[in-house]
Amino acid sequence: MLRTHTCGQLRKEHVGTEVTLCGWVENKRDHGGAVFIDLRDRYGLTQVVLGPPEADQTQIDKAGRVANESVILVRGKVANRLEGKTNEKLATGEIEVRCPELEVLNACQTPPFTPGQTDLPGEDLRLKYRFLDLRRPEMQRALVLRSKIIKTMRDYFAEHQFIDVETPILGRSTPEGARDYLVPSRVHPGHFYALPQSPQLYKQILMVAGFDRYVQVAKCFRDEDLRADRQPEFTQLDLEMSFVDADDIMGLIDGLVAKTAKEVLGKDVSLPLPRLTYDEAMRRFGHDAPDLRFGMEIVDVTEVAKKTEFRVFRATADAGNFVRAIRAPGGAEKYSRRQIDELTEFVKEYGAKGLAWFRVEEDGTLWSPVSKNFDASHLEEIKSLLQGEPGDLLLFLADSWDVTCKGLYALRKRLGAELKLYDPDALHCSWVTEFPMFERDEESGRWVAMHHPFTAPLASDLEKLESDPQACRAQAYDLVINGSEAGGGTIRIHDQKTQSKVFELLGIDEQTAEDRFGFLLNALRFGAPPHGGIALGVDRWVMLFAGLENIREVIAFPKTQKASDLMTEAPGVVDNDQLTELHLRTLAAKQPSATS
Amino acid sequence: MLRTHTCGQLRKEHVGTEVTLCGWVENKRDHGGAVFIDLRDRYGLTQVVLGPPEADQTQIDKAGRVANESVILVRGKVANRLEGKTNEKLATGEIEVRCPELEVLNACQTPPFTPGQTDLPGEDLRLKYRFLDLRRPEMQRALVLRSKIIKTMRDYFAEHQFIDVETPILGRSTPEGARDYLVPSRVHPGHFYALPQSPQLYKQILMVAGFDRYVQVAKCFRDEDLRADRQPEFTQLDLEMSFVDADDIMGLIDGLVAKTAKEVLGKDVSLPLPRLTYDEAMRRFGHDAPDLRFGMEIVDVTEVAKKTEFRVFRATADAGNFVRAIRAPGGAEKYSRRQIDELTEFVKEYGAKGLAWFRVEEDGTLWSPVSKNFDASHLEEIKSLLQGEPGDLLLFLADSWDVTCKGLYALRKRLGAELKLYDPDALHCSWVTEFPMFERDEESGRWVAMHHPFTAPLASDLEKLESDPQACRAQAYDLVINGSEAGGGTIRIHDQKTQSKVFELLGIDEQTAEDRFGFLLNALRFGAPPHGGIALGVDRWVMLFAGLENIREVIAFPKTQKASDLMTEAPGVVDNDQLTELHLRTLAAKQPSATS
Repeated sequence: MLRTHTCGQLRKEHVGTEVTLCGWVENKRDHGGAVFIDLRDRYGLTQVVLGPPEADQTQIDKAGRVANESVILVRGKVANRLEGKTNEKLATGEIEVRCPELEVLNACQTPPFTPGQTDLPGEDLRLKYRFLDLRRPEMQRALVLRSKIIKTMRDYFAEHQFIDVETPILGRSTPEGARDYLVPSRVHPGHFYALPQSPQLYKQILMVAGFDRYVQVAKCFRDEDLRADRQPEFTQLDLEMSFVDADDIMGLIDGLVAKTAKEVLGKDVSLPLPRLTYDEAMRRFGHDAPDLRFGMEIVDVTEVAKKTEFRVFRATADAGNFVRAIRAPGGAEKYSRRQIDELTEFVKEYGAKGLAWFRVEEDGTLWSPVSKNFDASHLEEIKSLLQGEPGDLLLFLADSWDVTCKGLYALRKRLGAELKLYDPDALHCSWVTEFPMFERDEESGRWVAMHHPFTAPLASDLEKLESDPQACRAQAYDLVINGSEAGGGTIRIHDQKTQSKVFELLGIDEQTAEDRFGFLLNALRFGAPPHGGIALGVDRWVMLFAGLENIREVIAFPKTQKASDLMTEAPGVVDNDQLTELHLRTLAAKQPSATS
Repeated sequence: MLRTHTCGQLRKEHVGTEVTLCGWVENKRDHGGAVFIDLRDRYGLTQVVLGPPEADQTQIDKAGRVANESVILVRGKVANRLEGKTNEKLATGEIEVRCPELEVLNACQTPPFTPGQTDLPGEDLRLKYRFLDLRRPEMQRALVLRSKIIKTMRDYFAEHQFIDVETPILGRSTPEGARDYLVPSRVHPGHFYALPQSPQLYKQILMVAGFDRYVQVAKCFRDEDLRADRQPEFTQLDLEMSFVDADDIMGLIDGLVAKTAKEVLGKDVSLPLPRLTYDEAMRRFGHDAPDLRFGMEIVDVTEVAKKTEFRVFRATADAGNFVRAIRAPGGAEKYSRRQIDELTEFVKEYGAKGLAWFRVEEDGTLWSPVSKNFDASHLEEIKSLLQGEPGDLLLFLADSWDVTCKGLYALRKRLGAELKLYDPDALHCSWVTEFPMFERDEESGRWVAMHHPFTAPLASDLEKLESDPQACRAQAYDLVINGSEAGGGTIRIHDQKTQSKVFELLGIDEQTAEDRFGFLLNALRFGAPPHGGIALGVDRWVMLFAGLENIREVIAFPKTQKASDLMTEAPGVVDNDQLTELHLRTLAAKQPSATS
């Protein structure tokens, strides 16, 4: 090693030691003829001094000229800092290294921005110069955390006898689910590989092959139009087990959550993690990934609404729809009439026609512009259902089940944050179970699998597969962290007949099923064990554990929302010869230039 | 869990316990009205008995009808086997489980082959039914070993403060090196991503970003015509370090080799691993990845050859070429005249024009059909140089340096195996260092980088970059295990001027360099530390550690030599709509059918 120590390592006990340090010039200060350099590496920051008597004027001048972010090597002796000059915030803050000379290993040109600057430039510039952006302590912390989380996961599953098996990246396209990324074959003209959307079928095959417990940190790919928190390639912790039920998988992941929270954040998580059924989650929170860091549960007041004179409530209730509400504690003072109007506009984005509201007054009565339409006893009943206290704001949607779910979910999420109802550092993990097997595709009116077509129904709902698909629940479970889906899995169908029946329900005829999934159906015929698994979103986990909100901050080299890598300028133009070899011609209007 | 124990877990101390087992029916035997089933899972084999008094005749009959490879569940009591019926070869061989009934979880149709059968079908059938093939104990062992080796590697680097960073799979095509796999972009018409041949540039960027120590088990891709031991996608343990020299990297990997050999095979490896320079390797073994499990080094006898009357030797030596030889211990008896003729044909494949040979007779004299052309003193000199002993066979090539290297390397490899000069279970690891920076491309006559264009020259050879590129040696090191290249790395160029000079030498002009590697050149301008790294071939490591010779035996779902996955039938045909969305048209003669 060129260095004897890192820039985070030296302490008082090293005083007097001759050391060699390497690192980046974070800062330098010229004080009374001596140059003080903050020398930085991944491990920390050490103060390096070039001054008399150790250094002569030539070296001091040289140090004065070194540009920030240059890479230098210094040899010197560790010394106590002068009294009053120590820095308690710095692990190395009691010492400095006094050097006779410095060697510039690589001078830095004037960079477009420096990692230390507080007013960061726009994300595009940071992505173009990612090697500078990645020097920022926040990015280093996030990626170190990511490495730790993944290591913790791998260790945990190794302790539980899982085998890490790599599944192919060059696979077969199946026109299910999202759009595939395709890879043209040179050897087989007109044929294409597809990058995997998940290792789903391979891991099921591994169970049929008797591997019993499989795990992989797997790269997955989806050619979708990108939302803020999606990337064309993403990482999932993927696992599968044989001879298990849903409880076994959830219990296993409970242990992982607790271990990761403890080892990575030093936090205790009490087990088992709470479990909600899908129905309960929709009823209490209006969503299948509720944020349980705070209460503010949805309350159904339809029965009272029916009895009131308020036209909107009564008409809704009479039509078989719902009046549901949430209570914003302390919201009466926090939200002015104007702000409540703004909340009304907000819920309209989710299909609501309006937002009714009541304030709980000091004397405990409810007041609202529409309160004259309510009997005092009905108001009392509503207050009691919502457990309203003086100062609370009660907010109501009267609409279809779906709209009340969506609207109140969004409202709850917004108010929870605005009213600071939770500790932003808290980590709340839970399960949502017993999802419906199917949902209707709104465009085609056909059944689609809510998870994927390999999901097993609850044993008790097996006969509903044919008699009442809508009511058929799946052996499915999603892990929710702080209101984000952080993983999802199912017990799979392990007999070929049920699998064929599900394909049929999904409108996949026998021939199509054989063409697309023949090898899976085959595998199910030759001794498939009962099995199930889960996939955890690694990028999402890291983001939530790090308390970050932009997924690109936890990925070393992310793509933009247009799926570009601004540093390498991928995707790029290729030679026509390369396309010819792949038996392809581009239909792009004209061959774009390499820099476009 | 459906089961209480695995099939490899029960021992004498469990006798009397009620257990539930799940697994595959490996075998069954009908003995005197009772059915004995060998129940198998990943962990072992347990004998299960359905017979009186526990089971009634209906259950016994049912057991008798269960097809091999079906998945069953049994509940029963652990019992001692009858005296004389224990099986010492089996970990569970002292007990059996006596069951009142069995439940068939999934019946197996008649499979095309069974994992237990000794006469395996051809590899194509095994790959098509990979879920059966992977049940073979050899495959399970290989993949468990693979998982262990990778875990050992990851643990080792975590202990050494490496950060595991994922680099992109969707990258930028650079027309260096092998052929890229391309991925058309939907969002950017006419633009393509490329799958990485290695994370080389990303890991250098990570060093420029100050990550100091990076590691990744990385998937890499090359669209090459496949040789027996190559796959279109392969796995490498990829790492990079800052502020190091070649010794640091080799020392680090020495530790990894020792740890892996110890933990995975229980073998001790003494460190440091031997190191040879490239020149020495070529001189002593004729190859840059010599098998050091045995001696049989190449000896240069050109000086003696010059003095003899043997025309071939003298002409070769006079022309400035070489006469080099190896000694096959005990080869005189082993190889008949006819077999030596066969060896002559063998070396001709490597460009040799013939093969001269001598037998060391009982009395210590050398004999050959051409020995009359040699003075006794010259023969004595040759014998002495080769340290010939009675019974040895001495084999000579007289040719250019290259041909003698290639021919004698091949001959040594063949004879080493045929004469059983080494323990096939032995593991011999070593380093070859100081490779030439450049070699001439035979077709174009241009310089090409022997490793890659980011390799730094030896500091002492820096000035030869311009004055004598041929003599310029690189800071490069290859890890060799049992005569196979198992890894290779270099110290990289960290200053932009040297990098530009190397590009220039390789005929990459300034504009092209900026277009292709602009972001790297940029990174080198903004504070790049000295750095270097290595990539280890994980598939190769597993193959060598497992003592296997076919790389497809250490990969769960490998491709054939035509880059096909026979199980999923990838690559496959895709809808024209998918191509249109990607702005592409296929030039394949006609759209092939989905089953071709």
